[in-house]
Order: sequence, then structure tokens, then C-alpha cells
Amino acid sequence: MAKKRIGVVLSGCGVYDGSEVYEAVLTLFFLDRIGVDVVCMAPDIVQTRVINHVTGQETGEQRQVLLESARLTRGKIRALNDVMASDLDGIILPGGFGAAHNLSSLASDGANAWVVPELSSLLLALYQAKKPIGAICIAPAIIARVLADQGITVTIGNDSATAGVIGQTGNRHETSRVDQVVIDETHHIVTTAAYMCATSIGEAGIGIEKLVKAVVERA
Amino acid sequence: MAKKRIGVVLSGCGVYDGSEVYEAVLTLFFLDRIGVDVVCMAPDIVQTRVINHVTGQETGEQRQVLLESARLTRGKIRALNDVMASDLDGIILPGGFGAAHNLSSLASDGANAWVVPELSSLLLALYQAKKPIGAICIAPAIIARVLADQGITVTIGNDSATAGVIGQTGNRHETSRVDQVVIDETHHIVTTAAYMCATSIGEAGIGIEKLVKAVVERA
Repeated sequence: MAKKRIGVVLSGCGVYDGSEVYEAVLTLFFLDRIGVDVVCMAPDIVQTRVINHVTGQETGEQRQVLLESARLTRGKIRALNDVMASDLDGIILPGGFGAAHNLSSLASDGANAWVVPELSSLLLALYQAKKPIGAICIAPAIIARVLADQGITVTIGNDSATAGVIGQTGNRHETSRVDQVVIDETHHIVTTAAYMCATSIGEAGIGIEKLVKAVVERA
Repeated sequence: MAKKRIGVVLSGCGVYDGSEVYEAVLTLFFLDRIGVDVVCMAPDIVQTRVINHVTGQETGEQRQVLLESARLTRGKIRALNDVMASDLDGIILPGGFGAAHNLSSLASDGANAWVVPELSSLLLALYQAKKPIGAICIAPAIIARVLADQGITVTIGNDSATAGVIGQTGNRHETSRVDQVVIDETHHIVTTAAYMCATSIGEAGIGIEKLVKAVVERA
């Protein structure tokens, strides 16, 4: 039997301007341990900003989301607009500020955010095909934005501002702890808070491992 | 009782010009799960090169090893020259080309390579204090270079060229598989091949988990 194919959407490399590295790598680790085929992808666009990860200040550099994401995949990555829903049995979005600054404008626009069109259409096609969607940390807010008014249930932990944004999309936020996942069985959506709540990589890993397992089981 | 303090030496962020990301993150993950205090550090120097991780070509950009390494630590990192052997109960060096290009000149100079002086003196002080040293992938060759003619035994898997370099330092190479660690009990040195041999992150994780456990037990 062919292995299940799970997509992982990256948004750069580094929590403050790209993918949260621990969330991305642990997702890849747990997927590989289960034994699925992983398809890493990122949009081929310029990063909204580049942050010095020691000072937290913008550096003024210009970096490409796809090339920086490739640092998380040992170079093996596809441009998001080359990936079709039919290539995948499920998808997972790790978090990090890249999700809110590069994949979408959530950080500045909340419930009115744009989402990169190739991501938006891929997520919608997977949703319509009833293939499972997993999202970690802030990324569940992207799912809520793309699937506005579908009545889906997601978690980003217990941050009331972000939970409010999710409510404004016409969807439901469920409060959770870092070691939990929220599974919306009706809509095939699995979410976990990870670094919206986590105080260590080990803590984040507990929810991420559960999320990966739940997505693969439903793929 | 105070927690054990284990240092992790980073060399940038990305396998082709910095730390191998999976080796670094899995080291941090397994250390955190055991429950030790982790001290991440990197030299505050300019990277020897910056590589486009999709094409493998040099980009001509200039990046700092410390700042890029901070992407792997959510910003929490110390400059190598600020860390003393007395701050640590043991140390681990993940691999990646950053180990052979930024922490040392192993990639070009083999057994005659320079090693960043603050790393060299820290490793030597830890060795003299009989604190355990762990090294992953290509990094065991740095240990062999710093501890020339000490008769230590390390592994980098089964790459004959690198094994030859280790032999030229007056130390011993032991061939190993990706799921093994080599423990030199006399010299308190633990090594594993990881991405010198690994074909997947899950495979690399097997040896890295064993290495982390062995270092912490001896710390």
C-alpha cells in the first residue's frame, strides 16, 4: 500500500519572522517516525520582515520565504503553488510569526487578514475533499480565516485576543492546555497550542506529537 | 538538587552553512525531556559562507553565526567566549557544515584545521575536568582535532575520508551505524553519526537520543 502523503507548510526559518523552528522540526520528526511521505512547501515570496533573533529588531535585510524554509528541510521543498490537493492526504501548518506575517496578514489585520492565495486555495480544496488539516500555535487562525463561517472549532490555547479573532471569522475557539489537541471531527481539523502556551520544547512536543498522530490517522 | 547544565554549541542555522537543524533541535528536545538546564552558545563571528539551501550555491550575503544560531533557540543564546567550563556539567556539538566551516576549517584543512579559539579552550577545559563531551555527525572531528594525540575514540559513521582525518590527529575512529553511539569511557566522549549516515530525521533521532542520554548520565 502506498504511504500516506502529508504536506507541511513552512513560512521561513525562525520564530520571529518565519516558522517556529521547534514546531516545524518536531512535526517532521513525528511524521517520519510514523512512516508517511512528507511534502514540505512554502510560498515563493519575499518575507514581510527579517528579525534579528537576539535583539528582536528588524535588520532591513531581504530574504525569501521559500529559500529560508529550505533550511528546515535540508533543501527539499516545493513552491506552494506547485502543490495540488490531489498530491496530499492531509496537511499540517506549524506556527511562528511567519504564519502571521508571511502566509497571512493576521498579525496586523486580524479577522480581516489576507492569506497567500495559493495557500488559501489549497486549504479550501483539502477541506472540500474532507482531507485532514492540522494547525499549530497561531496557524489555526489562518484555517479559521480561510474557512470563514464554516462553523469549525479550533484552539490556539488560551490567548483571548487571538481567540476573539477566530470568533470574528464565524468559527469557534475552544480553550486548551499545551498538552492537548482539539479535534473537530465534523470538519477534519486538528489543532494544538504549542508555543502559544509552551514554556519549553519538550512541552510543545507533547501536543505536536498528538496532533501529528491525529492527522495521519484521519488521512 | 540543582539541575545538570548541558551546553549546546551551534554554528548557524541550516545544514549547508550552519548547524544541521534536525540534529540541533532534536538534541534540545531530548535534553529538555530529560529535564536538564540547557545553555545554547555560538561564536560571535561572521559565517564563512551563506548557501542558498535550494540551489546549493553561495549567495554572497553576509550573516553572523551567533544571530543565525539564535533562530534555533528562540533568541536565547550566549556568545561562546562568555561561557566557562565551570558553567557546564557537559557539552554537546551538533553537526552541519557550520561545524566544518564556521567552528573550524575542517572542510578545507582536514587534520590541520584551525578551531575557533574560544571553542577549543572550552572543550579542553571540559576535557581536563572530566566532564562529558558529546559530538554529532561531523563534529567528532573537531573534538579529535582539539584533543590531538590524546588517544580518544570517536565515530562519524563510515566515511573513510573523515575517518582518515581523525586518524591523522592521533586519535582513533570507530565505524558505526546511524542508530549507534560510540562511548569512550576513559575520556568521557560520546559520538554518533546522525546525518553522516542518516536517510531521515527519524533515523538521525535514534542515535541522537542515545547520545543525549549518555552525556547527561555522565554529567
